[in-house]
Amino acid sequence: MSFRLSQYVPVLDWGRTYNREALSNDLVAAVIVTIMLIPQSLAYALLAGLPPEAGIYASIVPIIFYAIFGTSRALAVGPVAVVSLMTAAAIGNIAETGTMGYALAALTLAFLSGAFLLFLGVFRLGFLANFLSHPVIAGFITASGILIASSQLKHIFGVSAGGDNLLEVLETLIAHLGNTNPITLAIGVSATAFLFWVRKGLKPLLRKAGLGPKLADILTKAGPVAAVLVTTLLTWGLGLADRGVSVVGSVPQSLPPLTMPSFSPELLKQLLIPAMLISVIGFVESISVAQTLAAKKRQRINPDQELIGLGAANLGAAFTGGYPVTGGFARSVVNFDAGAETPAAGAYTAVGLAIAAVALTPLVYFLPKATLAATIIVAVLSLVDFSILKKTWGYSRADFFAVAATILLTLGFGVETGVSAGVILSILLHLFKTSKPHVAEVGLVPGTQHFRNVLRHKVETDDRILSLRVDESLYFVNARFLEDMIQDRVTRDSPIRHVVLMCSAVNEVDYSALESLESINTRLRDLGVGLHLSEVKGPVMDRLRKSHLIDDLNGRVFQSQFDAWRVLTGAPRPVPAAAE
Amino acid sequence: MSFRLSQYVPVLDWGRTYNREALSNDLVAAVIVTIMLIPQSLAYALLAGLPPEAGIYASIVPIIFYAIFGTSRALAVGPVAVVSLMTAAAIGNIAETGTMGYALAALTLAFLSGAFLLFLGVFRLGFLANFLSHPVIAGFITASGILIASSQLKHIFGVSAGGDNLLEVLETLIAHLGNTNPITLAIGVSATAFLFWVRKGLKPLLRKAGLGPKLADILTKAGPVAAVLVTTLLTWGLGLADRGVSVVGSVPQSLPPLTMPSFSPELLKQLLIPAMLISVIGFVESISVAQTLAAKKRQRINPDQELIGLGAANLGAAFTGGYPVTGGFARSVVNFDAGAETPAAGAYTAVGLAIAAVALTPLVYFLPKATLAATIIVAVLSLVDFSILKKTWGYSRADFFAVAATILLTLGFGVETGVSAGVILSILLHLFKTSKPHVAEVGLVPGTQHFRNVLRHKVETDDRILSLRVDESLYFVNARFLEDMIQDRVTRDSPIRHVVLMCSAVNEVDYSALESLESINTRLRDLGVGLHLSEVKGPVMDRLRKSHLIDDLNGRVFQSQFDAWRVLTGAPRPVPAAAE
Repeated sequence: MSFRLSQYVPVLDWGRTYNREALSNDLVAAVIVTIMLIPQSLAYALLAGLPPEAGIYASIVPIIFYAIFGTSRALAVGPVAVVSLMTAAAIGNIAETGTMGYALAALTLAFLSGAFLLFLGVFRLGFLANFLSHPVIAGFITASGILIASSQLKHIFGVSAGGDNLLEVLETLIAHLGNTNPITLAIGVSATAFLFWVRKGLKPLLRKAGLGPKLADILTKAGPVAAVLVTTLLTWGLGLADRGVSVVGSVPQSLPPLTMPSFSPELLKQLLIPAMLISVIGFVESISVAQTLAAKKRQRINPDQELIGLGAANLGAAFTGGYPVTGGFARSVVNFDAGAETPAAGAYTAVGLAIAAVALTPLVYFLPKATLAATIIVAVLSLVDFSILKKTWGYSRADFFAVAATILLTLGFGVETGVSAGVILSILLHLFKTSKPHVAEVGLVPGTQHFRNVLRHKVETDDRILSLRVDESLYFVNARFLEDMIQDRVTRDSPIRHVVLMCSAVNEVDYSALESLESINTRLRDLGVGLHLSEVKGPVMDRLRKSHLIDDLNGRVFQSQFDAWRVLTGAPRPVPAAAE
Repeated sequence: MSFRLSQYVPVLDWGRTYNREALSNDLVAAVIVTIMLIPQSLAYALLAGLPPEAGIYASIVPIIFYAIFGTSRALAVGPVAVVSLMTAAAIGNIAETGTMGYALAALTLAFLSGAFLLFLGVFRLGFLANFLSHPVIAGFITASGILIASSQLKHIFGVSAGGDNLLEVLETLIAHLGNTNPITLAIGVSATAFLFWVRKGLKPLLRKAGLGPKLADILTKAGPVAAVLVTTLLTWGLGLADRGVSVVGSVPQSLPPLTMPSFSPELLKQLLIPAMLISVIGFVESISVAQTLAAKKRQRINPDQELIGLGAANLGAAFTGGYPVTGGFARSVVNFDAGAETPAAGAYTAVGLAIAAVALTPLVYFLPKATLAATIIVAVLSLVDFSILKKTWGYSRADFFAVAATILLTLGFGVETGVSAGVILSILLHLFKTSKPHVAEVGLVPGTQHFRNVLRHKVETDDRILSLRVDESLYFVNARFLEDMIQDRVTRDSPIRHVVLMCSAVNEVDYSALESLESINTRLRDLGVGLHLSEVKGPVMDRLRKSHLIDDLNGRVFQSQFDAWRVLTGAPRPVPAAAE
């Protein structure tokens, strides 16, 4: 492979052909996304336990860095719900919300995530994200949505509460319900109801009024902005902040500051595992969005380069007052629907947000936290989808079991335990499935050269020949299984003179399995029974040739099961000399 | 399955046909094994850091319990080298050698091991032991042998030393070398040299003198007894104990006492993981010996029942002053060679040892510890075998890497770290191998109905048809890989009208992979390309039928790749309607 700089810095690719039309499309998209991002960024900062401006800062430099290094043309990078929750969970045990230590830990977490993502990208380790199975991700996102929504209830009621799992959150909430502020509750409930209505009822209404589907969609997405405007004006006009309604308060009017993460070894050690989990979850979320959008325009996403793009974005967040970021679903879809053509749209959004950070921050002083909580609740409840339980139950119990455990453990013990358990469980279930492989006794489908399971198909067999199709790679976890099975089969059925292992499904034979095959060979030889192999694949045969098995084999290696059948049944037709 | 008591208590099976001839054969074997076991039991107790009588006690009741519940006819259960070392490592951090707490922890460890083995046996979980691959076990045994031998050097030099890993052991040894007792060293070195000579040189000599091979073998195995007798007499006769030679000292003259393990939750928690590791390692060692010996007489070993037998043996050890036990290689081979026919031989050995415990213990007062150390060193160095490194290097780098890591980590960080790392590493390497599966483009081998890799064989192909044989089960770890690969292949080669996935090597399609296949199907449909499946196996097809994939498939499911080829190339011969 030759080195091309543009491979690592995709901006060099699309930047060359950037023209006026793309510019105007990107600008329109940027304006729409900026308006949507202002309340969202404030809300997610609240969820992460950080001051509101951290959400804005985390949307500026990261989005530019991603525009330079990322491969998706529509992905919008910034704070997202699940990563914000995971940030709160990771830092919550280390520092008190609102302290300098908390903000510093958030920067450090972003730094570690960025470094880890870059490391994975540079060493092309993106496939590691595949260890998270689709059902585990779906279960995790659903459970996180519930956790997030319940963690925001305190803002709706205007009380204090906390905790890392559902039980703690609800317990502390209920304990404080006596202090509920009725005005806050009224704002919170009406904002939530309004936003749910916008999501479900407004769009059909707008369509009926004659608006195009895209415009209707974008106006619907602007619902949170309306809620923010109305409740802020009300709070300001009626002086509700003095009557106990918790508001965002003063936010510094400034561009993102230059910040430094902490390099204290102890803090780095404490945050390393959370940072790795956040990186992987963030990457998986981001790449799913990017691939979905790219497929619609027949564009390609390079997973390893995405790691580099997201890594750069997180490093950007770490040095400019942010916290861990990734590609968000809602904002990316809005960006795409609004017509963004290149990552430059993201850069313009960053400019928009920078202007907002300098000029508009005083306007959010009277924005009630209950409104932000309402936007979070409505956004994350759309992530909650238990249908994965039903789907996996119908298809595969092992997958169902992994999802159910992920959901229960995430709700019961928090995000880190939940997602780790999901990964470990899916790996163990997979190994368990391969430990007792399906082995079919096969016979010839009449009139063909094709062999199928004797129990499922009407096939020809021969008493003297035991043809076994082993439906699994042979490796240490199942090596002994085959040994025991053949021993059982051959000592039981005395007429057998030949055992043929049909290896069409054997994709690997590791050293443990090689020893098992050697031992099977020795035992069969002692019994005067031949051991033959058929349909051994190229890569497997290459490896077996390095061992003594083939030389010592008490039988032959046949190219196809049909060749084996012809030779061993003594069929009349000539067969060429056995060769792989 | 019907319940038969004799399935769980094999003694009911062989006990019915027990006759005079078996009795006399078993008695002869028992006498020989008893003589060999006396010094061995004392030595392994020393290695485990326990008083010498613990080794004798651990050989009495456990051997009887195994005789009742075990399935091997020749296995001799008792203390073995590796398990003794692991016991010392597990307890060393909890209590001081020689204290009551140490002995209590040993009983508790035996109790936990027994309970865990019984649990595995009753729930038929014996296959879990397969997670230890053969190369990892070989590497672990080799490294343990080195650790054990080096830990005994202190007794040869007559100094104190300790540590859980090779570096610590050698460091503390060298630091104390100044205190070497020259008489002890003389005894230790001559005993070691004598035993090595017995092992290598005596047998050919005895054969030349006209002895039969079996008798020569048994006499050779009696070497340690001779060393014990001579050095004990010397020490007693010359009063060497007063000149600084460390001796076994007074051993209580008693049958195994009735003891209780501790049920302190804290201690149980501390010992749980070590007990699990000891159980699994002990089980693997024991079952390999049992299967090797059973195969020689065409007998069968039932792994799950073996777990029950070993579990009972360990519980027996826990309640009669012992420590963790398992089936030992050396003693079992001697038992087998001496002609043991049934597990009753083990019971007679137990009687012999019980007599020894009551009558002979005063005789070992003057037995030098250096002699015991010499027997251990000579025994374990026969376990050290680095050839596994060479064998795996030639066959499979992944296996080599797992062995090398196991050896280095066991030597460098002790037995528990070593074996855990070996298991985890082999699993990760396996997953890694399956994450980027081999996918072969196949074509028809002329004159047959057989399809092989276009790169390895001269085959017929058709530009419009892309036939891919996926050489791996499709599951979450590699689900996305296939999606990306087909996307790449089809957008690149425009003439392709049909993609046929030949599924002969696909043994599983999990939910993540199902989603990937659905997404491949959608994308290919958008491109106007058909997606077909061929040679889908019964169990996989059963599952796919539960999903929407087959209904929505933008193509057909063919029983064989040849059917697919005939239909898609428009070959003249008729094809029956597609059915799995």
